[in-house]
Amino acid sequence: MALIVQKFGGSSVGDAAKIKHVARRVIETQKAGNQVVVVVSAMGDTTDELIDLAQSVAGDPYASAREMDMLLTSGERISMALLAIAINAQGGVSRSFTGSQAGIMTSAKHGDARISEVTPTRIREALDEGNIAIVAGFQGFNRDSKDITTLGRGGSDTTAVALAAALDADVCEIYSDVDGVYTADPRVIPAAHKLESIDIESMLELAAAGAKILHIRAVEYARRHNVDLRVRSTFSTDPGTIVYSTKPAGDNMEEPIVSGVATDKGQAKITVIGIPDQPGKASELFQVVAEADVNIDMIVQNVPTGSDVTDRVSDISFTLPLGDLGRVAGALEAAKPTLGFRQLEQDADIGKLSVVGAGMKTHSGVSATLFKALADAGINIEMISTSEIRISVVTNAKQLDDAARAVHTAFGLDSDTEAVVYAGTGR
Amino acid sequence: MALIVQKFGGSSVGDAAKIKHVARRVIETQKAGNQVVVVVSAMGDTTDELIDLAQSVAGDPYASAREMDMLLTSGERISMALLAIAINAQGGVSRSFTGSQAGIMTSAKHGDARISEVTPTRIREALDEGNIAIVAGFQGFNRDSKDITTLGRGGSDTTAVALAAALDADVCEIYSDVDGVYTADPRVIPAAHKLESIDIESMLELAAAGAKILHIRAVEYARRHNVDLRVRSTFSTDPGTIVYSTKPAGDNMEEPIVSGVATDKGQAKITVIGIPDQPGKASELFQVVAEADVNIDMIVQNVPTGSDVTDRVSDISFTLPLGDLGRVAGALEAAKPTLGFRQLEQDADIGKLSVVGAGMKTHSGVSATLFKALADAGINIEMISTSEIRISVVTNAKQLDDAARAVHTAFGLDSDTEAVVYAGTGR
Repeated sequence: MALIVQKFGGSSVGDAAKIKHVARRVIETQKAGNQVVVVVSAMGDTTDELIDLAQSVAGDPYASAREMDMLLTSGERISMALLAIAINAQGGVSRSFTGSQAGIMTSAKHGDARISEVTPTRIREALDEGNIAIVAGFQGFNRDSKDITTLGRGGSDTTAVALAAALDADVCEIYSDVDGVYTADPRVIPAAHKLESIDIESMLELAAAGAKILHIRAVEYARRHNVDLRVRSTFSTDPGTIVYSTKPAGDNMEEPIVSGVATDKGQAKITVIGIPDQPGKASELFQVVAEADVNIDMIVQNVPTGSDVTDRVSDISFTLPLGDLGRVAGALEAAKPTLGFRQLEQDADIGKLSVVGAGMKTHSGVSATLFKALADAGINIEMISTSEIRISVVTNAKQLDDAARAVHTAFGLDSDTEAVVYAGTGR
Repeated sequence: MALIVQKFGGSSVGDAAKIKHVARRVIETQKAGNQVVVVVSAMGDTTDELIDLAQSVAGDPYASAREMDMLLTSGERISMALLAIAINAQGGVSRSFTGSQAGIMTSAKHGDARISEVTPTRIREALDEGNIAIVAGFQGFNRDSKDITTLGRGGSDTTAVALAAALDADVCEIYSDVDGVYTADPRVIPAAHKLESIDIESMLELAAAGAKILHIRAVEYARRHNVDLRVRSTFSTDPGTIVYSTKPAGDNMEEPIVSGVATDKGQAKITVIGIPDQPGKASELFQVVAEADVNIDMIVQNVPTGSDVTDRVSDISFTLPLGDLGRVAGALEAAKPTLGFRQLEQDADIGKLSVVGAGMKTHSGVSATLFKALADAGINIEMISTSEIRISVVTNAKQLDDAARAVHTAFGLDSDTEAVVYAGTGR
């Protein structure tokens, strides 16, 4: 008997009809001879509505971080109970469990807690008694404070993967309104096609590069704990895309050199011009950025210019999330006297294009193909960064979609039929 | 420093503005030099909305009793977190606690659990650290099943009283949109006046007799554990009515003979005609009623008639909640062959009027005054029952309000000014 963890996002349980549909689907999975654990997000807009309520009683409700967690976790409590009620009404047998009851132990950081330990004793008991076990996503429990916590962005996917790991599940299925992992965003590239399988490292790079299909945190957890994922749609029977953690890349897989092309318009660029080329200056600069609590991505330093060693200066560019641009620029301007740079340039109008594939480890010529495709399409490259299985370039935002189409074609990823359009997953 | 438990019902926390108002009120109570524990119900219609949702995914959601408790307890979780957030935003310091976190241990009966033990360790700690402690009403935790339970009707009032008892609070204040306990329902008798104080036994009789101001279960708990209650309005500064458990009736209290007149139109009457007057027949009859799980109230058996001992028959009448009438009548008809009665009469059109007062213990003439007032008003009495501090009569429902006015006047309870109209409390 296989053990399957299924995670349904907010849009999959958005109303009573959808909850009844999910209930049928879950019962079918059990009847097919599996043990089933279901992780649910809050229904549709519930979380936003609860946040609105909180903002209507307090200017900054997040100042009461513990209480916000208490508030928001009620959203999953509602959806999990309703799903269990629906399953039982359809002749199934189910029990629902809060994160705490499911043994999801976390750090104490309210609003963004990390999973520290998973002891799903009650889930195992429920399964052994023939139940479908329903678990609230996104939430956990801190042992020291005895308080309820939430896991922050990607929390429900991470709950599902963590339970799959702790229960040694055969697969963790992530359901949403998307029917799999595509070679690119079909809204941008209609010729994108769905992958039957992808290795977890490539999935991780795709997630990091801006593909919204799976949250990077859940993918990282799956990779670290060898959990196979399956991305599929709540509203179709398509098998979706299997994301292998348990098979090494290249093993028995029809491995294309490039698995996908990801684009990200949520990035901005800061260029610090004329910073003294002295040991420690770059470190000082990024210390200021780090104190603003921002994740920077690509960094480029140009070759220093200047007449002699004492007055040589260089320029440093880096990318960062668009939403953090103003804050970081402000922090750097404030530190200008210490850092001694001449000028700061902000660019909110950039796009990042990444080409990802486990096959890049063993194939040469990928960057040549990439740069030729971009050159032929007349795209100017502003920055470049690479990993073992990814090449990313920064372009002007206006050219990003053209660039993605050109690259997708150049790597032979175009399919003959138009893809269904997909959207991002919930939390 | 006094310790005060304050309970706010659903209408008191019905929207953001009301929650902010309650937050101010609670902070003021703490600033006046008190430790404050606040018990809240779910906001306004939240519970009904959750029940509607459950009914839209399942024909009989209560078949999943455990899951319904999981679902419904999210209502109080939302209101308690919002109140804590609002208090913190107004410069107060508060923490919210679920029933389980507050140490409310219960029996395992989902939907109608009984409080078995209260160990408010975390509440004491929170108070000692200077917090206002917010507690979700209506819910608890069963130690054996490790499951969340709800307390059923009157649950939030009972949570408040139970916490007041366990914390040895100085008083338990029950806030709603009613500003105290009245000598009668002011919607029926505009001349009704608010009592400054009432003893707990009289309050218990009033609640049992149909006064909706406090749930009988909470009053019973308060009486058993010597908790003083104060009934007051969320939206005025009126001190309301103190309900004394700690003072014996008659001690230092301006004790009227009669505290109040209660009416109840939610009752019905069944008369079993021509049941054999044999030992054990009445017991058999009420066994059938008991098996229908119904609380019967008044019972009257008339003098047997018949030519000799072997064929003597009698009639037995009893009152029961209107909603149970059809079910009980059906059960009795089904048992007709065994019980051997001749005929069953149902009367859904009755009203019960009760006169309550601790002073009745020591004063004679109360029933004489009552019966004279009813006779003068031309009211026919169908049944009578008495306790030490209560006399109840059943009349035709149409005459009930007239009867109540006549009796209220006869016992000198009329005030010179019209009372504000009051409504029932939430759960």
